[in-house]
Amino acid sequence: MKTVLIKEDILSRNNERARDVRALMQQKKIYYINVMSSPGAGKTTLLTKLIPVLGEYFRIGVIEADIDSDEDARTIERETGVRTIQIHTGGACHITCQMSLEALEALGTDGLDVIFLENIGNLVCPAEFDTGANMNLVLTSVPEGDDKPLKYPLMFEVASAVAVTKLDTAPVFDFDRARALRSIRRRNEGADVFFVCAKTGEGVAELAQYLKEKITRAIQ
Amino acid sequence: MKTVLIKEDILSRNNERARDVRALMQQKKIYYINVMSSPGAGKTTLLTKLIPVLGEYFRIGVIEADIDSDEDARTIERETGVRTIQIHTGGACHITCQMSLEALEALGTDGLDVIFLENIGNLVCPAEFDTGANMNLVLTSVPEGDDKPLKYPLMFEVASAVAVTKLDTAPVFDFDRARALRSIRRRNEGADVFFVCAKTGEGVAELAQYLKEKITRAIQ
Repeated sequence: MKTVLIKEDILSRNNERARDVRALMQQKKIYYINVMSSPGAGKTTLLTKLIPVLGEYFRIGVIEADIDSDEDARTIERETGVRTIQIHTGGACHITCQMSLEALEALGTDGLDVIFLENIGNLVCPAEFDTGANMNLVLTSVPEGDDKPLKYPLMFEVASAVAVTKLDTAPVFDFDRARALRSIRRRNEGADVFFVCAKTGEGVAELAQYLKEKITRAIQ
Repeated sequence: MKTVLIKEDILSRNNERARDVRALMQQKKIYYINVMSSPGAGKTTLLTKLIPVLGEYFRIGVIEADIDSDEDARTIERETGVRTIQIHTGGACHITCQMSLEALEALGTDGLDVIFLENIGNLVCPAEFDTGANMNLVLTSVPEGDDKPLKYPLMFEVASAVAVTKLDTAPVFDFDRARALRSIRRRNEGADVFFVCAKTGEGVAELAQYLKEKITRAIQ
């Protein structure tokens, strides 16, 4: 099947480019965070809570990727005031490293310490494409159910950290925290796991502190 | 860009095959329903509620597609007792028509009136691939937010019917029904829209009645 070969070729070129992006980020002393999840897991909302905390220490930029609409970029700008751009993928279900690179250029990296890339809401394809980020922060929301890592393995395998979001709705959804953790662990022994709620603020300080340490260590 | 040409070629071959599947279904007097949504929008749970109602009138089969795990097939079998198979896509983010055809053969179509295909949880890629189904039933859950059609246009454009699920959680998520409907309408003027809750049963009878009419008309 030719398709498979082409995909391998695409992936291998993508990975090469990702190494270039990481070298560039290292040289510029920028920490680049790729945020991935299902649609509606709360990526934008969590960012609006994390950015003000991290903004006390770092200069932050945000790349919002969507197939269509600029709602998220407008929300981030309105709520946080940080430098933000919206990119549209023209129907594509993920961000390739080439797109990531073009977005970084469009955003402008000068004067920034941290850049968040909010990837397309998709628990499958974005995991296949290394964006050149230093960290993959994967969100999975309580309403989705605690079994998602079992069904969408790669996303949880490539995660550096996992944030279980919308924790305040756990009673409504009969969500089992221990089972969620077991599901995540089945795919990833080493990922740092956080249980958070952007609405009530639960767990947000811990996640921000974790990110602060990672960023500080990387850009020193 | 070669990739694009190859994709077009794949899609055109896929569409040809989809016509064959539909011809086969028509000949066998089977109505084939492709159920699509984000991960965790409640496809399996809604099916466990619809199948017992429709099972009074029709012989039903279910194809459960996942990247990994057979949780959903086991749930459908346990809750409904209908003929069910689990297919694994080997990492693929959608069901092609070739996969759909192989799954129909593996399930065995003899003696069935209705077949549900529960597609991979993904609001992007499955919309690009015609599975040969007679109907695309698209679910979008309240917790995902009422703006999903704005961000994931194609999925709502290809929908024959849209079911907004987990309606009981609307107060928790500050969900606006009118805004949700407007978002859906912006992508699709003609889709039939249902607001349902599998847990409380709200709207399930209406959706089942709608499906019953569609099925009856098609397989007579």
